[in-house]
Amino acid sequence: QWMMLDWKPKRPDMLIDPFGLGRIVQDGLVFRQNFSIRSYEIGADRTASIETLMNHLQETALNHVKTAGLLGDGFGSTPEMSIRNLIWVVTKMQVKVDRYPTWGDVVQVDTWVSASGKNGMRRDWIIHDCKTGQILTRASSVWVMMNKLTRRLSKIPDEVRGEIEPYFMNSPPVVEEDGRKLQKLDDNTADFVRTGLTPRWGDLDINQHVNNVKYIGWILESAPSPILESHELSSMTLEYRRECGRDSVLQSLTAVSGDEIGLLASNGNVECQHLLRLEGGSEIVRGRTQWRPKNANNLSMLGGLPAESA
Amino acid sequence: QWMMLDWKPKRPDMLIDPFGLGRIVQDGLVFRQNFSIRSYEIGADRTASIETLMNHLQETALNHVKTAGLLGDGFGSTPEMSIRNLIWVVTKMQVKVDRYPTWGDVVQVDTWVSASGKNGMRRDWIIHDCKTGQILTRASSVWVMMNKLTRRLSKIPDEVRGEIEPYFMNSPPVVEEDGRKLQKLDDNTADFVRTGLTPRWGDLDINQHVNNVKYIGWILESAPSPILESHELSSMTLEYRRECGRDSVLQSLTAVSGDEIGLLASNGNVECQHLLRLEGGSEIVRGRTQWRPKNANNLSMLGGLPAESA
Repeated sequence: QWMMLDWKPKRPDMLIDPFGLGRIVQDGLVFRQNFSIRSYEIGADRTASIETLMNHLQETALNHVKTAGLLGDGFGSTPEMSIRNLIWVVTKMQVKVDRYPTWGDVVQVDTWVSASGKNGMRRDWIIHDCKTGQILTRASSVWVMMNKLTRRLSKIPDEVRGEIEPYFMNSPPVVEEDGRKLQKLDDNTADFVRTGLTPRWGDLDINQHVNNVKYIGWILESAPSPILESHELSSMTLEYRRECGRDSVLQSLTAVSGDEIGLLASNGNVECQHLLRLEGGSEIVRGRTQWRPKNANNLSMLGGLPAESA
Repeated sequence: QWMMLDWKPKRPDMLIDPFGLGRIVQDGLVFRQNFSIRSYEIGADRTASIETLMNHLQETALNHVKTAGLLGDGFGSTPEMSIRNLIWVVTKMQVKVDRYPTWGDVVQVDTWVSASGKNGMRRDWIIHDCKTGQILTRASSVWVMMNKLTRRLSKIPDEVRGEIEPYFMNSPPVVEEDGRKLQKLDDNTADFVRTGLTPRWGDLDINQHVNNVKYIGWILESAPSPILESHELSSMTLEYRRECGRDSVLQSLTAVSGDEIGLLASNGNVECQHLLRLEGGSEIVRGRTQWRPKNANNLSMLGGLPAESA
């Protein structure tokens, strides 16, 4: 169904958005913004990092709300939400990456929202390569409302529903729901544990909270570096269970499914389970990631990495 | 002399650069690129972080080299440099920030190069607010060449000089040279020490090195949080002395000059000395930062921070 978001050559289109701030398309229901990938958004492989992609998702979600005229006081809250001290919190995020863009590539991010159950909202994204039209990334997320004073989840008040419902698209998620239960890791089941992770001042967003994109960096802190070096993240499912404040000290746990570590040499796909928890034990994020060999995709196109990498 | 870079209203100008990739202006000697500040580039204060500004400086420097047709294989190296395995390394960076932009602001970054002594190159930047024309930031840096195999500094070969010299502007630095010697901190002179800092996989650039912008985050890791919370960085001088690889473990040291910590309550300006060193003791970066009370500048314009910051 999301195929209706047909891709068209973008040059004339982009001229409508010279400031790169995005605009509403598709009968007012889809927000579209272009990003050129910058040198500081790529890593050792010359490709954009998963955090960069997630940042672009966040930016388009906020600009969508802003462009719709629904930006209240806060960071994505509508006016009726602001009055009631309600903020959006993400509970689930699924991302599939087919290809990572590289420095100088221009990508087009489309995003829209739909209902999710009675008190949730789903937000989907599709990222295209502007030059080729190829789909690079698809992502689907579920959001609920939290009272920022009590920190308790809230139903969607009717007044808020009135604001947002006109923007709901009636479409299935762009990433098929991963129905497999996410495992709860502990010290016995984890293969790798990284302790003592603390937010830096710069990790806090304007709500003085750690932004959910930062969690991804922490999750990957416990992923074994042979995987990070030889593989690229192809898919990720995250369940956010509890928020994390500026004084939190976190532990990152990773289990590599089966004995795939041994298969790295033969360049197989790898699946990992993850847990980010407070030192006290409370779960912050459960996750599952899938990895494919790097040269399966991007690197061959770049003629390989320089042999020298001192 | 850099006043010749007169600022003009930018709207018609920006339309020439719809992809936001920048272009050469000023008789071919100045490279100009606009950036709109994104939601993930701002911090708890709603303003861009110093790392964001530094990233924009890096991006324009690289795009300048690229647009001039001088981008060889590497990350800013010219073709003649690539043949000789030479890379640029920064030895000094001075930044003055008058005002930090906020989410949605569009800034214009101008950059150009000049000779610096016999074997160096200076690169300067000026950042303007596109809407008001106000100068937000000025920065000046010195670069030398290093052989990436031997890791030794190199003279500028004639062939490389031939490539880059036509781009040299004859102009004084936009930030007056801070002639005061940077102090070498040690465990006795430092007030705050943060140990065990390690690069994450995502901190590495395509040369498998830690990018110099990352150092700034580490330097600020040892700055006391009362300063980070109540003050903003107004000026920074960094001397890069040694490179840092992926397996380095670093220590960050900060000394607050005089007894200014006690003055924080009365909202005075603060000066800090910094050292980033390897656990073994080798100096990586020496630095000095100056801080002014936050509300002296931005916050009053934003109507203050939300009272609630749970």
